[in-house]
Amino acid sequence: MPLVRIDISADTPDGTVAAIGDVIYEAMISTANVPEHDRFQIIHRHASDELVYPAEGYLGITYTKNIVFIQVAWNEGRTIDVKKAFYKAIAQGIHDRTGHRQEDIWISLIDNKKENWSFGNGEMQYAP
Amino acid sequence: MPLVRIDISADTPDGTVAAIGDVIYEAMISTANVPEHDRFQIIHRHASDELVYPAEGYLGITYTKNIVFIQVAWNEGRTIDVKKAFYKAIAQGIHDRTGHRQEDIWISLIDNKKENWSFGNGEMQYAP
Amino acid sequence: MPLVRIDISADTPDGTVAAIGDVIYEAMISTANVPEHDRFQIIHRHASDELVYPAEGYLGITYTKNIVFIQVAWNEGRTIDVKKAFYKAIAQGIHDRTGHRQEDIWISLIDNKKENWSFGNGEMQYAP
Repeated sequence: MPLVRIDISADTPDGTVAAIGDVIYEAMISTANVPEHDRFQIIHRHASDELVYPAEGYLGITYTKNIVFIQVAWNEGRTIDVKKAFYKAIAQGIHDRTGHRQEDIWISLIDNKKENWSFGNGEMQYAP
Repeated sequence: MPLVRIDISADTPDGTVAAIGDVIYEAMISTANVPEHDRFQIIHRHASDELVYPAEGYLGITYTKNIVFIQVAWNEGRTIDVKKAFYKAIAQGIHDRTGHRQEDIWISLIDNKKENWSFGNGEMQYAP
Repeated sequence: MPLVRIDISADTPDGTVAAIGDVIYEAMISTANVPEHDRFQIIHRHASDELVYPAEGYLGITYTKNIVFIQVAWNEGRTIDVKKAFYKAIAQGIHDRTGHRQEDIWISLIDNKKENWSFGNGEMQYAP
């Protein structure tokens, strides 16, 4: 059920974009108990003035034009420890797979209800 | 107040995109008690590698490159039965109007608070 | 921590787009207690049929093709008065800086949890 939006520079090689999607999916399975094949992702490619971050950095983190914004909507109920492990697996995994700086991996979650999804066919597959 | 994001293949004919927006708006009115003229929608057209779904399908549903992601932010308080009727009206209506497969209609809701909207003019029109 | 999506016509001059981002950031600091340098914004430029609003208007507000959709995800806990001031500062500020009609400034908030953010490095910087 997670729906993932990935906002990324249009200069990013296609293979890197695909690898980032792979890492996020794998992190969901390994850290957050997401079922296999539950992979739904939307990529938004952007011109350089469309991804805005503070030139001075924030909280000691600095950013480059390679910043990747990852926004995940998924079901509520995951613990703080699960979310911590999820962040770490994504940043580390993207760095290992693509060479992207870990500082440029920016993640935001939206917790949602089980009944707020239809995976197709007009059905509420996760009805309580 | 619903804000609807529709993420769709750039290959989709413009008339189909418009019809999908019409169906979603009409489903809101007929099933979810949304007021007339409360229609605010954002269309994102995507290259083929930007809409990611599992090749194996999920929960018995299979997808094609014509998958349509519909993300609706609206006010909390709607019942499970209303949401079920809303999903069904959208998938059925899009299929009837455009021939799109119902399996390719993917819907996600974000429930929100009444004070979280400004419809223009810097005002909080739904202030509690 | 706010993550701001700004959906705007592709016909908007680049300077206007930048000014709108500036105003939103400044409104966060002046009205909503957001820390300095906490500026993360995603711009989506759109073709004219991709920003959909009611031709008849809604709640007495009328819209033009210059409508700007602003969707802000940030931490929960802000009061209704803060949100009112935030809306007003954005609409007024954009009008003053760019000449945009205040009626065309459309804002939606998503309230979030402190643990739902990673600002880079795979860390949960706001861990409770």
